Amino acid sequence: MKHVIRVGALCAAAGLATTLAGTAAAGEWDCKSKFGPEDQIGNANYLTAEKTLAASKLITKGKSYRLGIEVNSKTPAYPPRYVTVTVVQPGQQAGKTIGPHKLTYNDDMINGWMGVGPQIDGFGHIGIDNVYYNCFKQADIGNITGLGKLGIETVPPIATRGIVLDMAGLMGVDMVKEGTAFNVAEIEAAMKRQGIAKIEKGDVVLFYTGWLQLLGKDDKRYSSVEPGLGREGAKYLAEKGVAAVGADTWAVEVIPFEKDAAPFEVHEILLPRSGVYILENMNTEELVKDKAWEFFFTLGPSRFTGAVQAIINPIAIK
Amino acid sequence: MKHVIRVGALCAAAGLATTLAGTAAAGEWDCKSKFGPEDQIGNANYLTAEKTLAASKLITKGKSYRLGIEVNSKTPAYPPRYVTVTVVQPGQQAGKTIGPHKLTYNDDMINGWMGVGPQIDGFGHIGIDNVYYNCFKQADIGNITGLGKLGIETVPPIATRGIVLDMAGLMGVDMVKEGTAFNVAEIEAAMKRQGIAKIEKGDVVLFYTGWLQLLGKDDKRYSSVEPGLGREGAKYLAEKGVAAVGADTWAVEVIPFEKDAAPFEVHEILLPRSGVYILENMNTEELVKDKAWEFFFTLGPSRFTGAVQAIINPIAIK
Amino acid sequence: MKHVIRVGALCAAAGLATTLAGTAAAGEWDCKSKFGPEDQIGNANYLTAEKTLAASKLITKGKSYRLGIEVNSKTPAYPPRYVTVTVVQPGQQAGKTIGPHKLTYNDDMINGWMGVGPQIDGFGHIGIDNVYYNCFKQADIGNITGLGKLGIETVPPIATRGIVLDMAGLMGVDMVKEGTAFNVAEIEAAMKRQGIAKIEKGDVVLFYTGWLQLLGKDDKRYSSVEPGLGREGAKYLAEKGVAAVGADTWAVEVIPFEKDAAPFEVHEILLPRSGVYILENMNTEELVKDKAWEFFFTLGPSRFTGAVQAIINPIAIK
Amino acid sequence: MKHVIRVGALCAAAGLATTLAGTAAAGEWDCKSKFGPEDQIGNANYLTAEKTLAASKLITKGKSYRLGIEVNSKTPAYPPRYVTVTVVQPGQQAGKTIGPHKLTYNDDMINGWMGVGPQIDGFGHIGIDNVYYNCFKQADIGNITGLGKLGIETVPPIATRGIVLDMAGLMGVDMVKEGTAFNVAEIEAAMKRQGIAKIEKGDVVLFYTGWLQLLGKDDKRYSSVEPGLGREGAKYLAEKGVAAVGADTWAVEVIPFEKDAAPFEVHEILLPRSGVYILENMNTEELVKDKAWEFFFTLGPSRFTGAVQAIINPIAIK
Repeated sequence: MKHVIRVGALCAAAGLATTLAGTAAAGEWDCKSKFGPEDQIGNANYLTAEKTLAASKLITKGKSYRLGIEVNSKTPAYPPRYVTVTVVQPGQQAGKTIGPHKLTYNDDMINGWMGVGPQIDGFGHIGIDNVYYNCFKQADIGNITGLGKLGIETVPPIATRGIVLDMAGLMGVDMVKEGTAFNVAEIEAAMKRQGIAKIEKGDVVLFYTGWLQLLGKDDKRYSSVEPGLGREGAKYLAEKGVAAVGADTWAVEVIPFEKDAAPFEVHEILLPRSGVYILENMNTEELVKDKAWEFFFTLGPSRFTGAVQAIINPIAIK
Repeated sequence: MKHVIRVGALCAAAGLATTLAGTAAAGEWDCKSKFGPEDQIGNANYLTAEKTLAASKLITKGKSYRLGIEVNSKTPAYPPRYVTVTVVQPGQQAGKTIGPHKLTYNDDMINGWMGVGPQIDGFGHIGIDNVYYNCFKQADIGNITGLGKLGIETVPPIATRGIVLDMAGLMGVDMVKEGTAFNVAEIEAAMKRQGIAKIEKGDVVLFYTGWLQLLGKDDKRYSSVEPGLGREGAKYLAEKGVAAVGADTWAVEVIPFEKDAAPFEVHEILLPRSGVYILENMNTEELVKDKAWEFFFTLGPSRFTGAVQAIINPIAIK
Repeated sequence: MKHVIRVGALCAAAGLATTLAGTAAAGEWDCKSKFGPEDQIGNANYLTAEKTLAASKLITKGKSYRLGIEVNSKTPAYPPRYVTVTVVQPGQQAGKTIGPHKLTYNDDMINGWMGVGPQIDGFGHIGIDNVYYNCFKQADIGNITGLGKLGIETVPPIATRGIVLDMAGLMGVDMVKEGTAFNVAEIEAAMKRQGIAKIEKGDVVLFYTGWLQLLGKDDKRYSSVEPGLGREGAKYLAEKGVAAVGADTWAVEVIPFEKDAAPFEVHEILLPRSGVYILENMNTEELVKDKAWEFFFTLGPSRFTGAVQAIINPIAIK
Repeated sequence: MKHVIRVGALCAAAGLATTLAGTAAAGEWDCKSKFGPEDQIGNANYLTAEKTLAASKLITKGKSYRLGIEVNSKTPAYPPRYVTVTVVQPGQQAGKTIGPHKLTYNDDMINGWMGVGPQIDGFGHIGIDNVYYNCFKQADIGNITGLGKLGIETVPPIATRGIVLDMAGLMGVDMVKEGTAFNVAEIEAAMKRQGIAKIEKGDVVLFYTGWLQLLGKDDKRYSSVEPGLGREGAKYLAEKGVAAVGADTWAVEVIPFEKDAAPFEVHEILLPRSGVYILENMNTEELVKDKAWEFFFTLGPSRFTGAVQAIINPIAIK
């Protein structure tokens, strides 16, 4: 269990990590997008009308699934994130009501962080040495009141083919163990087992690991480690042109990180390097139970101007 | 313009309005849902697999539309609502980066109110004398940390037939004037003009008025008055069994309110009396431009436990 | 220990407690202030220049004590209260600095509740059946954006005689046990032991119990029970004309409540019935160590318009 | 009026200002405190018991003054700062009360920024190239959840001699004009006029300019420019050993800045270079009316762990 400890320490230490001098990482990186110098949406460019139309044919039963888990003040979150909702009744103190019909109403306040629970990571989330997707520089865009570029409001409507890869089923377990990396071999084995012929441009790929079973039962384990995508697997999916990658875990990527991996290197591969959105804490359990391996996936993240992330609830339809 | 003033005063006074004694409103009301004593989702019960499957056939081109407008600290909102997003860089003060790849990241905080901009009103939003949809009592469910029933997390996946009614087109104007009520005559005229044969159970009906053109240009007018649904029209749609009604306005209903109407009586008809969700500030301009009168409508509101409302961005697909 | 459990349940249940019909409590209450119909400051009216001048003579050494404990996200608080501070660097992302001198700066956000840690309860905090100090009605003053009367901004400057009563010393213990009530006998015994001749109009009386020793060590115990002021003691102090009563506990009053006491009845006696401010979580340990029984007490609470409480840090000077 | 415009632009541009290469500012600076390598309180070290005792003799009438102005959502603030208070009634929805006495209560939430209205700037507020008072480095202390050093909780109790310098009176005006700098000549002239013999170690010096008259009347002018302390004056006061400098303005220092001054250079002189706290938006009008030039000044800022600033309300006593 020393890996867990090591990673726990790593996460805790993230804020304190000093810059190592002279690595080649930033220098080697070609930050330019293949979609042109103005592009802010990466592989979501593959979300063409043709793609959406073709994906809509996957709807054969009409059954809908909501992929967003509930989120509240008890949802484990990456420190120091938290979120609270407060329900209030403006103007109704002491039992007052409004007008002849005695109207009453509740309103709600939200305070805390966007990055809690089921969320999409926009391209403003992760950078390499303060350079983000398509060479946008943090110095230029990282305004405290909202990103000047790559904000979550730029995410286009996502209506495309979704695929769930049942990694627990593949491995014959109820819940995949933390530290288990999903790379090309695992991805292709899962596809083969499920009869999925190929992954195509604009697809959304979701991994099912069973990890959400820990939520509310062992939040500490849930939020410190996890099975997930490895670096090779991330590159493989990015090269296939997927628009987004998600999982039923808080980080999508394997933790403890792979040997010699940089912290959150899979995030780095997907977001700034490849223009692939990340979807975290996605509940695909019912899809897996129904063996609904391929489906129509729709997502419209709330459009806070300049926000980095959004709390989401995609709808899958079979 | 005296209507505007009257309504402005009315809105401002809402919190102070005293209870008028002895109105029959609450007493007359049969709060029981036709969907049984446990029901929390109203007409969303009509969102069957058959309905979703049939609606999916409306996708003929694959073109997607995001209906959520952007939301930020400048978005006009019903007082005292506001919302802010703050973008921060944890652990990166003084230019620090993380690990050998010099990872950098933005995170975001959200503070304020849910009911700002594009939103869905859940059934916990409006009650009559503290009784809400399906007889749930505010005294039992109105907890400050989250509604005990009727919270936004209960909203099922919405994937159904959407209809946009072009009221501006019907009336031959660019933007429908405030105080213009949409009732049966107007709704049926719009349907006839657009060749929409009928409204069916589980549909989502959106009104296009052109009102969003005011946003950022005359926020005061935008947020104090509007054209919108009248009482008769609301009852008509509710009886048709629609799952939700929306518009490109902040309240969906006509303001100044109709003669003799109680404050927000259309909200009252739709939410507690009929179990119909309300979708506010929905941008349907492009749908109207494309004459995409009928379409596949999908919405998964973020699932804050016990929240009253959610900021949304539904996806319409033609 | 069953009392503890009972009270724990009681506190948890507070929000759910139903109204008992027909008690005489509200009816019997004479809510009028002796200081006239406009008064909002209660016994703080006794804070005259003469009083302040006389109290200033208690400064004989010039030693200052800060009575406010630190407050942060770990400070135990009455549910659902919490508070967080977030330190940010606007405009300095990616290591940017400002101007030729390379100015850098931190700013801080605060989110949560006022009633956390060291605090003053204003007269808008506690009412009897929605009537507050001096007959101000909640229906009239309880605006969601700030109290219309009795807000914390009305608290006058407090510069007066302070007294600390060493209840732990009196009882020969390091920390007084929860459920121990301080009534007339205990108060007078403590005064006698410490050589305090009398309590006078406009005084601030603080109880030392040693209870703060639990903070960070047994927060659950700290925040669910405590030794403190009983009803008879509260009436006694109020009749003496004290301006404020405080303690090194979260509620100042004894919990479990005294036999037959209503929930937070000591709060009720002090605030609405007597116009006496309450000062919670006051650290008087060093005063007690120094046997600085009488001192000059100064407090200027931050003046948020219409706020109910304020987080404070009074200065005692010997 | 071109100065106003220039400064408005300057303030707006602060976040965008690029680093000028090669200035000598940081290099020349000797960041070490004269109070030793562990010191976090600067000239507050002069707040000895002797100093406090002597200052207490200034109390000759017993009249108290609160120096904190009210603060609320309308208080002008340096962008993007804002603050809101929300008053709520937990557990009392639909007119519920608690227990046999029908207890009711208000609580309050606070959301926004600390640096609004009457405030103390701690030494973690301003740095030079990410080095703060006494050489504490931002990289080490600037944690997002609270400063590791120099947090507002470290401010000692302040009970000392206060002086108000009536600059409006000196200049024979009701309100000193923006851009008017207070340097040695002005300070000494004001002292002479008021019969103040000298400024001593540990004193708190407050400037009265009349500027608060603009509040709520011309907030734009109030918050974009101001008369105030110049660089020479700041150095003079720092050398005298004052513990804090304040004014009835939002920044204490003259704006437009003096010719050739760096942005907020007076802040820089006082905080990191000299260990002198800054007190902003201090209302000294009544002190001036009473010609209470010298007084006993007390301040205990609320002690949020690691906070940068605190909203305050010092008490002056004559």
